[in-house]
Amino acid sequence: MAAQGRIALIAGSGALPIEVADHLARTGREVRILAFRGFAEAGLRRRAHAVIDLLDLEGIMSTLDGWKPDAVSLVGAVRRPGFAALLGAYSLLRNMHEVKDVISRGDDQVLRGAIRLLEERGHRVIGVHELAPGLVAPPALRGGLAPGDADRGTIALGLELLDSLSAFDIGQGAVIADRHVLAIEGPEGTDRMLGRVRAQRQSFLGLRRRREGGVLIKAAKRGQDLRVDMPAIGPRTIAMAARAGLSGVAVGTGSTLVADQRGTIAAADRLGLFLLTVELPWMVAGDA
Amino acid sequence: MAAQGRIALIAGSGALPIEVADHLARTGREVRILAFRGFAEAGLRRRAHAVIDLLDLEGIMSTLDGWKPDAVSLVGAVRRPGFAALLGAYSLLRNMHEVKDVISRGDDQVLRGAIRLLEERGHRVIGVHELAPGLVAPPALRGGLAPGDADRGTIALGLELLDSLSAFDIGQGAVIADRHVLAIEGPEGTDRMLGRVRAQRQSFLGLRRRREGGVLIKAAKRGQDLRVDMPAIGPRTIAMAARAGLSGVAVGTGSTLVADQRGTIAAADRLGLFLLTVELPWMVAGDA
Repeated sequence: MAAQGRIALIAGSGALPIEVADHLARTGREVRILAFRGFAEAGLRRRAHAVIDLLDLEGIMSTLDGWKPDAVSLVGAVRRPGFAALLGAYSLLRNMHEVKDVISRGDDQVLRGAIRLLEERGHRVIGVHELAPGLVAPPALRGGLAPGDADRGTIALGLELLDSLSAFDIGQGAVIADRHVLAIEGPEGTDRMLGRVRAQRQSFLGLRRRREGGVLIKAAKRGQDLRVDMPAIGPRTIAMAARAGLSGVAVGTGSTLVADQRGTIAAADRLGLFLLTVELPWMVAGDA
Repeated sequence: MAAQGRIALIAGSGALPIEVADHLARTGREVRILAFRGFAEAGLRRRAHAVIDLLDLEGIMSTLDGWKPDAVSLVGAVRRPGFAALLGAYSLLRNMHEVKDVISRGDDQVLRGAIRLLEERGHRVIGVHELAPGLVAPPALRGGLAPGDADRGTIALGLELLDSLSAFDIGQGAVIADRHVLAIEGPEGTDRMLGRVRAQRQSFLGLRRRREGGVLIKAAKRGQDLRVDMPAIGPRTIAMAARAGLSGVAVGTGSTLVADQRGTIAAADRLGLFLLTVELPWMVAGDA
């Protein structure tokens, strides 16, 4: 159910915030963009109504109070090496107990904490999946190549793995080749995880099979608040997966954002990877 | 129960093979060392009775057949980026179906497959924990610093996480800070995982808290064959953990090898990390 009225879009990095902003503009929705300095891309910063430091909590809150939006939505990553450490350093310097409390439990909890703070200020916070359902991976999303039987087994194992990890608030993604878990995504994000797999596979003698195989599985965690850090892929993810020698990408349907769906499918077809969506047994149908 | 008679030590990288060889020499055991070219350290290669390429399966087997040892033991890592890929490339080139079959299921299965091949040739394969029980972390292993209550909670969570992962044949180690999983060890090994945590924590603005905290938890997997790739730590692990900003290291008692126990404890004390062993609920007492 899409929100009506004025939307405040709080935008981090990547192509998704721009796509969401475009989508909202096309639907004639009144949107104001608050972009994070150092995260939001230039194209978005130019369109933004405010560019604010991620750490300037007071600036963010007073800007939103001034805008009085009907709903607030967070889109785009604010993770990067050192983000939590930086916030921690900042909170120590400024003695901002509120922030310190929020950051004490990891990136997801930071974002959940941010949502809590927004809600305490009276804002309604909605997920991008509600705001722009067209950007969410539909069951029909599918490239031209189909996975083999072994790949299907790999995907099933990957879903079991991610389900097991949900309780530990880690594991929006994993790379599995045959029945071997090559990597589990941590706070470093999908791109770095794929880079790690690529490095693992680079032979010290320069020998390397062209396509070792394996699958990237991306899915929302069991019980994940989709207003926070929804799994997202795009053409770049496909390119990184190809460079890591994978044979395909599987994403949870209804709970993964796909930036540039057409370009993502085209990249998969061009690079010879299958791309498909999978039902997540732990997501209630109709959630997204 | 230590094996009697002639021992063939098949040695990979790291300090442990040297330490095991020293230990056996001190106890007057007859030992022959088969060192892997490109893995075994120079000090060990000089003492080795044979230096053989890891991929020269026939050379390894015929050497062992010639030695007729009463027991064979594998010690030291043979993992590194590209190891599996290299073996894969090799098996493709040489059409060695036997090797190809063995490597099809990941590093641990490679080693389990190697043990199977040795056993099929009539060799008795024993673990380093049987051969040199003095190198296994005893319950009493402990540095001068004690963990805080929060650290204890972190360790408990880490054990739950590793237990959950056992079914997926991944996760001999993890780094957890507060209740946030920063990294799960994959085929890249402990050192690289700690390097990743360090990188995550390095601020893009150069700001960094001196000691962010967190614990490295190392433990054998549920059902792990301890003759294969036992978890191992040493002074270098402590140094890497310190550089990653951790406050301590916890290892499974009875199932983790500790290279240079005195040096490892000294490093922990010097660098301000706690070091302790934990009972693994899934290891049967007396296994090691």
